[in-house]
This record gives sequence, C-alpha cells and structure tokens, in this order.
Amino acid sequence: MQSYAIRVEYDGTNYVGYQVQPNGPSIQSQIEKALQLMAKLPKDQFIPTIGSGRTDSGVHAKGQVVQFDYPAEIRPENLLRALNSILPDDIRVNAAALVAEDFHARYSAISKTYRFVVNNERFPDPFTRLYSLHHPYRCDIERMQEAIEFIVGTHDFTSFCSTKTDKTNLVRTIYEASVTYDAPHFIFEFKGNGFLYNMIRILVGTLLQIGDGLKPVDELERLLKVMDRNEAGPTANGNGLYMMEVGYSEDPFSGPDAYTL
Amino acid sequence: MQSYAIRVEYDGTNYVGYQVQPNGPSIQSQIEKALQLMAKLPKDQFIPTIGSGRTDSGVHAKGQVVQFDYPAEIRPENLLRALNSILPDDIRVNAAALVAEDFHARYSAISKTYRFVVNNERFPDPFTRLYSLHHPYRCDIERMQEAIEFIVGTHDFTSFCSTKTDKTNLVRTIYEASVTYDAPHFIFEFKGNGFLYNMIRILVGTLLQIGDGLKPVDELERLLKVMDRNEAGPTANGNGLYMMEVGYSEDPFSGPDAYTL
Repeated sequence: MQSYAIRVEYDGTNYVGYQVQPNGPSIQSQIEKALQLMAKLPKDQFIPTIGSGRTDSGVHAKGQVVQFDYPAEIRPENLLRALNSILPDDIRVNAAALVAEDFHARYSAISKTYRFVVNNERFPDPFTRLYSLHHPYRCDIERMQEAIEFIVGTHDFTSFCSTKTDKTNLVRTIYEASVTYDAPHFIFEFKGNGFLYNMIRILVGTLLQIGDGLKPVDELERLLKVMDRNEAGPTANGNGLYMMEVGYSEDPFSGPDAYTL
Repeated sequence: MQSYAIRVEYDGTNYVGYQVQPNGPSIQSQIEKALQLMAKLPKDQFIPTIGSGRTDSGVHAKGQVVQFDYPAEIRPENLLRALNSILPDDIRVNAAALVAEDFHARYSAISKTYRFVVNNERFPDPFTRLYSLHHPYRCDIERMQEAIEFIVGTHDFTSFCSTKTDKTNLVRTIYEASVTYDAPHFIFEFKGNGFLYNMIRILVGTLLQIGDGLKPVDELERLLKVMDRNEAGPTANGNGLYMMEVGYSEDPFSGPDAYTL
C-alpha cells in the first residue's frame, strides 16, 4: 500500500457536492469509481478517499486535494493520466504525488483559499451563468472593501455559519480577505485556517448587502459580536464559489515524487 | 405592426439548435414563447420570428440576429428588458432595434463571422468543456495558418458541406479566414458571405488533420477541386463553434432606434 494525493479541479454544476451522498452523484463517488476501475477491484470493494474538505452542490474547485491508499505502486504521472482518462469531462486531476504515510489531506492542511465570483451585469451572461453569481444591483465596491477588513483575524464566526453545522468550535482565523473588480465581475478572495459550513457564502451574501447600501459598512463587526446566524445576510448561491488552494507546511505537489500538468 | 430586430447570444448546450424542431427545445422556440407571453397572446397564436441563419445543436452565438413583427409599439430598451426577464439564463438579448419594413434578418445579411475554439490541452478543461472542442494532439499552427489561406476567395464548397443540405448552389465567398493561438486554445475565425450546412465544422475538422500532420498543407486546395464531402475531414463537434456577427449594409443596432447593452 502506498499513499497518494491528487489535486482536483471540477465544475460542481452536475453534482450534489464533493462528498458521497445518497441523493445523487458526487465528486468523491466519481473519483472512487475511477480508482475502483483502475485497481480492478470487485464491485463490493472500493478505495476510500479523504478530501481536504467538502464543497456544496454547484460549488467548483481548482485545487481540491484528495488522498487515498492505492494497492499497487504507480508513478504519479501514470496515476494522473489513468484517472483523467476515466473521469468525466467536468472533473480533472491536475497534479498527483506520492505522499508520506503521515500526510492527511484534511488534518495536515494549514490554510485554505476560496474565491467567489459575482457577475454585476444587468442580465445573466449565458456563458458564465454556471460559474458566477448574478447580482444585477448597483453595488459599491469601496464599501465592500472597507467592510471586508473586519473579518481578518481570529473571530467566532457563529453568525456566518449554517445552523446545520456539526461543529462546536466556531472560531476561525482569516489571514487575508479582499474584493476586487474585474469588469463585469466582483472577485472575492478569502484565505484562512479553515472555513465553516456555508461561511463564505453567508459572508458574500452579507457583503453584497453592504455594497448595495442595505446594511452599514461596519455590519460585519456587529455580526461577529452578536453571534446569531439570523442577523447575517442570505447564503449566496454556490455557483460563484471555488475552492482554489489548500496549503500544507510542505507542498505535496512540488517534490520529486509529484507530477503536475 | 412594427418590425423589430434583436441581437441574441446563447449557450447552445441545452438546445437542439437555433431552429424550432419537434425533438426538443430550440433557441427560436424559447424566443417565440417569450414573445407570446409578452404580447399576452392566446395559446394557439404566436409571433413568428426569422433568424439570420440556423445553428446546430450545441453551437453557441454571440451575435445571432432575429427579426419579428410585434403587435404593439414598444421601445427597444423595454423590448430587450422584457425578453431578458422571461428568457432562460442561457439566452440573452444584447441589443434591440426598430427596423424598416424591408429589413430581413437573413436576406439583408451581407456577411457572417464565425469563431471556432479548440482546447489543445492534454485533458479536457472542466470549465471550458462546453465552450471549446477538446483536441489533445500535437498540432502545428503554422501548417494550419498556411493551409487556411486556400479557402479565402470564391469557391465551390461541396467538399465542405453536409450531404444533407437542401441547397443546390454551393459556391460561397470567404473574405477572411485565420487561426491564432491563445494558450491553450486555437481560435479559428471565418468571415464570408454565407456558410453551408456544417461547413465550418468540416473545415475545422480538416484543418486539425493538417495541423496534426495527417494531411498535407495544400489539402484544402485539393478538396476544393474534388468536390466530394467524403474526401474531407470529420465534422468537428459543434461545442467549439460560435456565430459571432451578422453584417448588414446598415447596422440595425447602431441607429437612434436601437438599444445596446
């Protein structure tokens, strides 16, 4: 048995989310099916995988990291090629590596970076409708840029976490948070040590309210204090969200036992 | 009755093509349904539309032109807004204009410009898979650039026309034809006075064979002479094709009776 990690990008449109669920196809189930086929396992056996974190239905990824033990030795390049030839076109492995036995895709992660793309045109764009949230209102980026600063640092993010969470410690540290305008899109970027269930989508939903002038610029400061999900803005649709990068103290995809597209 | 023209962009992925067909939803049927709703017509009445030309299943448009008579006076901006609020997200009207009675979306057109996008990466890109043809082979752009010159001018394009065509005159004039590389995509552009059924898709299928070294650089010259569809390359998948622009001696969308997004 050897431990491998792959870096995966996907269009989440046609999936119930990253994680295996009974109600439809998931990214994880597609990867596990591909591994089962590669390893020629019988139908009742499969290779369990560990993702760095879940993504919701419709949410995309450019750098999800997935780990598993494979029953044979295989060169990372061959692993990448074999998986990509089996996986559907909306999932692509862009790096593969042999990793140490103590590497853990989730627990070894020290940071995660997410992006959220908002299309600010009057009418939805047929070609980016699946890859950005459509928000046709006059929205002031300077208000959002001022507001987003309040979340940088270590805070209890109860107000920005779905009440369906199974976590009890809702304290997280945000290292960087920014919003820029690249016509016609607002691009939000968040880097932190971890993110709660729906956290970025609720943050973006609230930031857009601030940009629209519906909420004051210091609204996020107030919300961090009140610790009540009901006080925050709506959960923005997941189609604008991308898991961009998972950080590890040692990048598993830059060593000699790695292959990158 | 007033005559209007609209300029329409669409993601053709979920449609059987531009034109109404019994086997599924078309762009035209969506537009006619929207007009019927706007004009509050009874179910058995509809507003017939004329498109500048058909596009096949999966083919996209940035500048399809559609014309119709509307039973009430309506400002172009209001027409555009009303249609966009009814149409699905994969179809967007980006210009609307009042046009003279003798304007005809098809017969008044003096040129058409098409683009074909080819992704030359090793594995399909999850985010552009619906909007480009995936061609993972080592493909020499200089060979294609040399080859594409042969089709500029007036020729009989029988070799590059589906045998299912209902046309008898297969002579067309190509004003401009080019291929450029914008990593990782080859971008083919064709401007002509008209194009035959599957013509661009067969041209691209053949040009890629030339780029791959499977056919000689002067292959298009030979194919223009032999006038036999079976001698040309395969019909490239429509997902890389875009109807970009329809030219008229007077641009209907630049006058005072026009509104552009």
